[in-house]
Amino acid sequence: MIRKKILKIILLALMTSFHPVFADEGMWTYDNLPLKILKEKYGFEPTQEWIDHLRLSSVRFNDGGSGSFVSPNGLVMTNQHVVRGQLQKLLTADRDLLRDGFFAAEQADELKCPDLELNVLLSMENVTARIQGAAKPGMKELEALQARAAEMTAIQKESFESTGLRSDIVTLYHGGEYWLYRYKKYTDVRLVFAPEHQAAFYGSLWDNFAYPRYELDFAFVRVYENDKPAQSVHYLRWNSAGAREDELVFVSGHPGKTERLLTVAQIITRRDLEYPADLKIARRRLEALKQYAALGKTEASQVINAISGTENVIEADSGEYQGLLNSTLFNKKIAEESDFRNRVDSKSEWKKNYASAWTDIVNVQKKYAEIFKPFKYRRIPSRMLADKALSIVKYGEEIQKADDQRSFGFHNDQLESFKFQMLSPVPVYLPLEERLLAAWLQLVSEELGANDPFVKTALNGHSPNDVARDIFSKTKFNDLQVRKNLLDGGADAIQKSDDALIVFVRKLYPIIRDIQTSYAEKIQSVESAASQKIGKARFEVYGKSVYPDATFTLRLAFGIVRGYPMNGTLAAPMTTYYGWYDRSLGFGQKPPFNLPQRYWDRKSKLDLSTPLNFVSSCDIIGGNSGSPVVNIKGEVVGIVHDGNNEGLVGNFICNDESGRAIANHAGGMIAALRVLYDAGRVADELEGNAHAK
Amino acid sequence: MIRKKILKIILLALMTSFHPVFADEGMWTYDNLPLKILKEKYGFEPTQEWIDHLRLSSVRFNDGGSGSFVSPNGLVMTNQHVVRGQLQKLLTADRDLLRDGFFAAEQADELKCPDLELNVLLSMENVTARIQGAAKPGMKELEALQARAAEMTAIQKESFESTGLRSDIVTLYHGGEYWLYRYKKYTDVRLVFAPEHQAAFYGSLWDNFAYPRYELDFAFVRVYENDKPAQSVHYLRWNSAGAREDELVFVSGHPGKTERLLTVAQIITRRDLEYPADLKIARRRLEALKQYAALGKTEASQVINAISGTENVIEADSGEYQGLLNSTLFNKKIAEESDFRNRVDSKSEWKKNYASAWTDIVNVQKKYAEIFKPFKYRRIPSRMLADKALSIVKYGEEIQKADDQRSFGFHNDQLESFKFQMLSPVPVYLPLEERLLAAWLQLVSEELGANDPFVKTALNGHSPNDVARDIFSKTKFNDLQVRKNLLDGGADAIQKSDDALIVFVRKLYPIIRDIQTSYAEKIQSVESAASQKIGKARFEVYGKSVYPDATFTLRLAFGIVRGYPMNGTLAAPMTTYYGWYDRSLGFGQKPPFNLPQRYWDRKSKLDLSTPLNFVSSCDIIGGNSGSPVVNIKGEVVGIVHDGNNEGLVGNFICNDESGRAIANHAGGMIAALRVLYDAGRVADELEGNAHAK
Repeated sequence: MIRKKILKIILLALMTSFHPVFADEGMWTYDNLPLKILKEKYGFEPTQEWIDHLRLSSVRFNDGGSGSFVSPNGLVMTNQHVVRGQLQKLLTADRDLLRDGFFAAEQADELKCPDLELNVLLSMENVTARIQGAAKPGMKELEALQARAAEMTAIQKESFESTGLRSDIVTLYHGGEYWLYRYKKYTDVRLVFAPEHQAAFYGSLWDNFAYPRYELDFAFVRVYENDKPAQSVHYLRWNSAGAREDELVFVSGHPGKTERLLTVAQIITRRDLEYPADLKIARRRLEALKQYAALGKTEASQVINAISGTENVIEADSGEYQGLLNSTLFNKKIAEESDFRNRVDSKSEWKKNYASAWTDIVNVQKKYAEIFKPFKYRRIPSRMLADKALSIVKYGEEIQKADDQRSFGFHNDQLESFKFQMLSPVPVYLPLEERLLAAWLQLVSEELGANDPFVKTALNGHSPNDVARDIFSKTKFNDLQVRKNLLDGGADAIQKSDDALIVFVRKLYPIIRDIQTSYAEKIQSVESAASQKIGKARFEVYGKSVYPDATFTLRLAFGIVRGYPMNGTLAAPMTTYYGWYDRSLGFGQKPPFNLPQRYWDRKSKLDLSTPLNFVSSCDIIGGNSGSPVVNIKGEVVGIVHDGNNEGLVGNFICNDESGRAIANHAGGMIAALRVLYDAGRVADELEGNAHAK
Repeated sequence: MIRKKILKIILLALMTSFHPVFADEGMWTYDNLPLKILKEKYGFEPTQEWIDHLRLSSVRFNDGGSGSFVSPNGLVMTNQHVVRGQLQKLLTADRDLLRDGFFAAEQADELKCPDLELNVLLSMENVTARIQGAAKPGMKELEALQARAAEMTAIQKESFESTGLRSDIVTLYHGGEYWLYRYKKYTDVRLVFAPEHQAAFYGSLWDNFAYPRYELDFAFVRVYENDKPAQSVHYLRWNSAGAREDELVFVSGHPGKTERLLTVAQIITRRDLEYPADLKIARRRLEALKQYAALGKTEASQVINAISGTENVIEADSGEYQGLLNSTLFNKKIAEESDFRNRVDSKSEWKKNYASAWTDIVNVQKKYAEIFKPFKYRRIPSRMLADKALSIVKYGEEIQKADDQRSFGFHNDQLESFKFQMLSPVPVYLPLEERLLAAWLQLVSEELGANDPFVKTALNGHSPNDVARDIFSKTKFNDLQVRKNLLDGGADAIQKSDDALIVFVRKLYPIIRDIQTSYAEKIQSVESAASQKIGKARFEVYGKSVYPDATFTLRLAFGIVRGYPMNGTLAAPMTTYYGWYDRSLGFGQKPPFNLPQRYWDRKSKLDLSTPLNFVSSCDIIGGNSGSPVVNIKGEVVGIVHDGNNEGLVGNFICNDESGRAIANHAGGMIAALRVLYDAGRVADELEGNAHAK
């Protein structure tokens, strides 16, 4: 009895604090900004011009990240870690941009990035009625799903054909709303400045989500059109004084994915099935990468980025997983759902229309558990050359279908992007690919057993090592021309190719396709329909006072520059250069806590009291990396580069008490450019755009 | 089934890591140092001379703290917070040593501390056989307790009479061993140096157990004999290079109290009864102190020390309490006890002699729960003037008894110390005392109810405020001469005194005495007997490979200077002055994170890379404050001032993975003395004693 009573009190307490209206919470779409909260809580009323300007100055890094225009000449600010993949791809025998950093002393020296696509959100159109209307009453769930998908494709196609702009359908509120977002697309992107990895990733994995934080995780690229710097009408002015404590600030960027509207049953699936498997897969990958790195200095430099990226994934996933194992947090989630369902049940029409959705989701979780292992392991992980081969095999199949029957990614208007990716001149290291494939096949055979059709087909009685060695001793798929020939040759060329890697994945393709189809039909379609119901219910119950889950589309978050309770003490709102030297010396300058030599050589020229990093209560998540932090004047006062440990659970729930966005400070960035990196050209370009004081 | 299996695996895993032989764990008595571990693990074999020298250089601050001789002229190093009470007592209208710090430019300026007693452990004698032998077979538990107590008194008396030295019986291993410790006693102690409170208690409550840490919590006093600096034959040489990462270091000091040998049943009592009550009491006290401080600047300065002391207690108790609510830790405790009891049960003689002890303790917890509230609240808390009055009333009763019948603290050889305390010329603020008493009586009446005899007698129908106001408008007990007259007048004078405070506590005394006696007879004696059995059993099972619980007697801990995993990242082994400026600027220099002005004025003269604080894995607890940290040469490399948050559970269990002793670094101390405080005289005295390099 006592226990129940206590639980109830806790639930009540949680419910009263559930509604996010008074928290600095939310990744708000630009069509529905929390203007009432901003006015009531902070007395701030942005004009439509302020809002549009910030949107049009915001840039999406299409392979995952955010940025912003910071000069009228196409200069874009982002994180070093957002362009880390490009730096890696620019590695040559003479040039190591990760190790040494990069600065183009003249504009002519700016270095073309191999395969970077930047997007700017030009317009947003609500197409909910049209897409929801495509699913006619009486349709089965799969039919409805397909009907909606076909309608999306049609809208995208129309839009692309009429405007020439990248046109994406964005699903918000789990299908409660659909929007057509049109983007201006830049593909000629050149590197202007990036600090050495040691400064941008200081403390390595240890400091990855840590705060107080000391690092300079920023970079500048410039977009070009017709081989000339693009004229960026909308760009953010610079404020070298930077963020101040207690200041209201905004983060405009592209949070990748949150699952805050998931039901409890879905979260249990994540907790008990997805995270343990994903962590296992990532750890195996890390193991393979490290074994490869151990082969020698050259090999090590080839995978330094992949290793830190994988470690990052492991740390982030572990944080989220731990968050889900935290019963307090989980109870909060339970309380939220309980409140929501009670409200739905309180009105007979709502109850009739929506109440079954939660039960549907509970039931489909059981079905998902049954096919979980084959679904998870009958595949080739992305970021492997074999996955590229698989994509080309799939391409060969898909292009034989009518456009509206194809899978997402293979529609006519998407093929250009697809080919751009397939033909990216990224260096491929065959011995590395061999190891990664062998490690993956080893794991799959352990998980699925020798009798699984995928395992049987892949190994054909041989060991994972032997299979991988055989393939990579023969394939020429790493050759750009070979890939181009396959794409140009189309379905027929791909079907007849005798390249060892293509032959290998061609055999696996039907097995992979079948399990994917089975998942789409039995699981995804049901979840999608139920989620859409829940999304609708959410509108009806809470209105648009809530924000949708993150979808790697443009969002605005707001918050205050402030410290937080941390591990029994208070974390300060800011750090300074002083602290960086402290941390380095505290470890006796041992890696990964050593500072680049220039930091010692130029220390006396640096004002060490200059702010380096700061935290704000803005609600962010992966994908927000590189987002500008702007003040109420819309000026750049910093750049987001990470969330803190305490906020890692943000995928499922916003921890606004101690979760924080960590940013580099505009003042510290200017100091670094001028004093540490002799990059006055960039600093001048930034400060030349500052408002008159 | 699965749950049980998992539990078992966890228990097994815990048990294998239970035996402390390979951990840097233990507060070892000087008669039983872990020489084998030191040799095997670190290749270090101290000579008996090294051991004796360190012991004889170690100093106990009798009101709670540690220190060490650091010059041949009686100079003693300790923490500012160990002498904080003295600094407070030295407060005058013109002089505020907490606010401003203190440095005696000349020896003649050294400032006599009002009531400080320092002890040096001269000898240790094992008297276990004699004391255990005093309890004859067939005696009831209470008789045995009294017989042992009488024997202790006799031994102490003999020793005092024959040597003139302070002679204490020390109970180790919960009665498994008894030792006679003889101390040289110093009572003429003069203040040489203390930094301002702002530097010594930087970050106030927030940074109290935090690390990375920035503060200078050290002070120097000098002991005098016959009005001249005492000649300290044994003193520790100074090493200005200070502690180095990965170095083996030792902490010689006086850990106050641990309860690591408590049974699970006893810990449950602490968790469910003691901590919640103690926290409530401390919070009420803090409330009263803060209300008093709000009256004005003068009042605030009078209680600044009491407030920070109480906040410290609350934070420490909360940390311990939280530790007990942590199920992993609690399971470790359960696993330890399970291992211990299984070993006892494995041998029929052990089982017969000892197994009942755990059951006895379980049963007596139930009885304790019944009298818990009256026992906890029918009293006057220490650190109140009313408690001093109560002590004098008790004194009046006790001195009428034969010496061996008296309570501890009132034996003939203890009366001098008692009177010294009673007549300490500490300023008393009657309005403060009134508030503290009123707040206490309010709490007691809430907890015990109006019909409790203590409450009835104390209030007699009036309100707590009225009672306190009435007493403190009349009492003259704050007058030293009044107290002296009472002590000189003895039982009769005390019995007849019409001082309002004495009259008040005289009425309460029998009620307090009765509940104390009831506790001693029904609870303490049973626990004591059972604990002694368990102590004995522990010897038989584990031998002296384990160390006894802390008893505020001299112990040696050892460990390595090293960082630890903290909140998702690594805490560095050291901090530097750089970090202090960083932390202060990070908070915009807002209190309590502002630095004294001299720190800014002299910053350019300071080598900011000088280490300021460092951590080691030495096993410490409250009472160790002020302990020297020495290297294998026995040189001072730092001074312990706190444990970290992660180690707060150390009262019950040693967290050697991330629990750390936080110390000021010898190098940082010298820099502070010379550059910040113009205290070269002390720095010279210290460095003059350094070994030749």
